[in-house]
Amino acid sequence: MIGHWVAISPERGRRPSDYRIEPDASLSKHDPNCPFCPGNEATTPPEIDRVDGAAGDWVIRVVPNKFPALNHEPRREPQRVLGLFERMNGTGAHEVVIESPLHAATLPDLPPEQVETILATYAARARALGQNPDYRHILVFKNHGKAAGASLAHPHSQIIGTPLVPHEVARRTRTATAYTEETGRCFLCELLERETRHGDRVIEATDDYVVLAPYASRFQFETRIVPRTHHHDFAASKAPQRRAIARALRRTVSRLANVLGDPPYNLVVQTAPLPTADTGHSPQAIARSLHWHIDILPRLSQVAGFEWGTGIHINPTPPEEAAAALREAAC
Amino acid sequence: MIGHWVAISPERGRRPSDYRIEPDASLSKHDPNCPFCPGNEATTPPEIDRVDGAAGDWVIRVVPNKFPALNHEPRREPQRVLGLFERMNGTGAHEVVIESPLHAATLPDLPPEQVETILATYAARARALGQNPDYRHILVFKNHGKAAGASLAHPHSQIIGTPLVPHEVARRTRTATAYTEETGRCFLCELLERETRHGDRVIEATDDYVVLAPYASRFQFETRIVPRTHHHDFAASKAPQRRAIARALRRTVSRLANVLGDPPYNLVVQTAPLPTADTGHSPQAIARSLHWHIDILPRLSQVAGFEWGTGIHINPTPPEEAAAALREAAC
Repeated sequence: MIGHWVAISPERGRRPSDYRIEPDASLSKHDPNCPFCPGNEATTPPEIDRVDGAAGDWVIRVVPNKFPALNHEPRREPQRVLGLFERMNGTGAHEVVIESPLHAATLPDLPPEQVETILATYAARARALGQNPDYRHILVFKNHGKAAGASLAHPHSQIIGTPLVPHEVARRTRTATAYTEETGRCFLCELLERETRHGDRVIEATDDYVVLAPYASRFQFETRIVPRTHHHDFAASKAPQRRAIARALRRTVSRLANVLGDPPYNLVVQTAPLPTADTGHSPQAIARSLHWHIDILPRLSQVAGFEWGTGIHINPTPPEEAAAALREAAC
Repeated sequence: MIGHWVAISPERGRRPSDYRIEPDASLSKHDPNCPFCPGNEATTPPEIDRVDGAAGDWVIRVVPNKFPALNHEPRREPQRVLGLFERMNGTGAHEVVIESPLHAATLPDLPPEQVETILATYAARARALGQNPDYRHILVFKNHGKAAGASLAHPHSQIIGTPLVPHEVARRTRTATAYTEETGRCFLCELLERETRHGDRVIEATDDYVVLAPYASRFQFETRIVPRTHHHDFAASKAPQRRAIARALRRTVSRLANVLGDPPYNLVVQTAPLPTADTGHSPQAIARSLHWHIDILPRLSQVAGFEWGTGIHINPTPPEEAAAALREAAC
C-alpha cells in the first residue's frame, strides 16, 4: 500500500511450509445445520438474486446478511455528539453471496466457470447497489476460515454499501491521485511494468493479468491480482476480463493451498468510491488514478499491540520469498 | 480515535457474559520449558535491566527480544526501490519486559506495587531508548493471550524504538494538534470533562484518572485509562501518577476478567513521538495537544475483510453497554 510502512523481519530458519495449516477434514459436503446448504433456503432472509445451474438447482444465491453491520435505513446527515464526535445512523446494504451449494468447497474446488459466475455476481450486485444515491462506496470481500473472521464454514462472500467513503478508501484515493498528478501515470500500471521487468515479486503474469506479492506486504504471503487493462471501477468490468481474473483467482488460491494447506484469508476487491462520493477529486482524476484489483490477505499470525499502536504491520516473510514459493507451487 | 469511523452494530440478545472466554486452567505457576521462568535466565539474551525483590530474587527482567521486529543497526536514510517505494533498514530496539517470575500471573494476580514497578520499568526503558538519536518514537505494548498475538504465555510486555514516526502515531499527532489549534484545548482534557459530566461511558473516575469506554470503540469492551494531569510524554511520568495509573490498570483488567473471563487483549501506551522526530509540529504544539494514556483492546472477534478494505471496525458492543457492565463488575 502506498503511504504505509511495513516491517519485514524474516524469522531465521523458517520455510514457507512451516506456516502450513492443515485443511479441516471433518467438513462434509453437506451440513444439515448450515443455513447456506441446499434444503435450508427458508432459514435465510428472502433471496435478492440467484443463479441457477443447468439442472435447474441454484449454484449461487445472494441474500441479505441476517446480522448486518449496517442496516438499510434512510441516510441522515451526521450529528454532533458531546460536541466532539460525529454520529450517523448505520445506513447501508449488507448482502451475502453464497458461492456454491457445496458446504466444504474452496475456490480451487469449484469449476472455473463457477468462479467466473461468482465474480459476475459480485459485479452485478455492486452495480445495483451503486445506483442507490445513499451509498458512497461498495465493498466486496470474503473471509475464509475462522481465524479470518468467517463465522460460517460454507463458502460465502459479503457486499457492503456504505453511506460514507471509508477512511482507508479515501486514503488510497488520495495517494493514487497524488501519484498521477505528479507523474501523469497510474501507479498500478507503472508498478506492473516495473515488477514484471524485475520479476522477483511476480507470481504469474499473462497478457490479461499479473499476480504479485506486493512490495510492502502487510501479511505473510499477501498476493495481489491486477488486471492489465486499466479501469477504476470493478462494477464496470466486462465478462472476458472477469474470466481471466477468475482464472487468476482460482490459480492463486490453489497455489496458496499447495504451499500453506488451508490458510485462513481475507479477500478484498479494491475499487474506486462511487461517483456520488465527495472525495475532493474529479471523476476524471479518479478514473485515471485508480486501478481495481483483488487483494488476498492470508492470516497466519495475529495482528497485535505493535500494529494497533503504530499502524505498521510486522511481516516475517519477505514478499520475494513468498513469490518464489507461490510461483513454483502447483495450481 | 479522532478521524476514524466505527460501525457499532449490536447483535440482538447477546449479553456481555456471552463473550466470556474461560481462563486456561492448565497453566501452572512454573513451566520448566518457558524461557521467561526462573531457572531459565541463560536461555534469554543478556539482561538489559532487572528489578530485584526483597528476597534478592528478580521480580522483573528486561531482555532483548530474541526475534526482534527491528534490529539495532545504525540508521540509514531511506532508499528508493523500483523508483516507487522507499526502503530503510530495520534499525530499532526491541526489548521484552518479563513482568513477573510467575508463569501464569495476570495483572490482577500481581500485588499493586508490582504493577507499579512494571510501569516504572516501562518509563525507565522508554527514557533510556529515547536518548538514542536514531529513534523517532518509543512504543510500549503488551499482547496477552494467543488470539492477541502473544507467542509465550508467561506475562511480558514489549518496547520498540522505531527509526521513523509510525503513520498511526503521525495521524494521531496531526488530528490532536489540529484540534488544539482550533479550540485552544487538549482534546483528551476536554473529553474527560465532558465524559465525566455525561457518565454513560465512564467506568471509573478518581481525582487521578478516568477509565472510559471510548466513544468510537473499535474493539468490544475497549477501555482507555487517562491520567487527569495533562502530559504528552509517558516516559516523563512521575512515581505518584504511575502509582495511580497502575491501580487503574490492575482494577480495569480485573473488571475485564470478571465480565469476560480471561479475554485476549492488546495493551498500548499511547504517547508522543520523540523530540528528534520531524512531525511538522513544534515541540510546544505537541506538548499542548497530546495527552498520554493507555488503551486496552480486548480481542473477542476477528478483524476481517471489511476492516482491511475500509479501515472501519465493526463493533457489536456499544461502548455504553460495555461501560455499564465493567462499571458494575468487581475489581
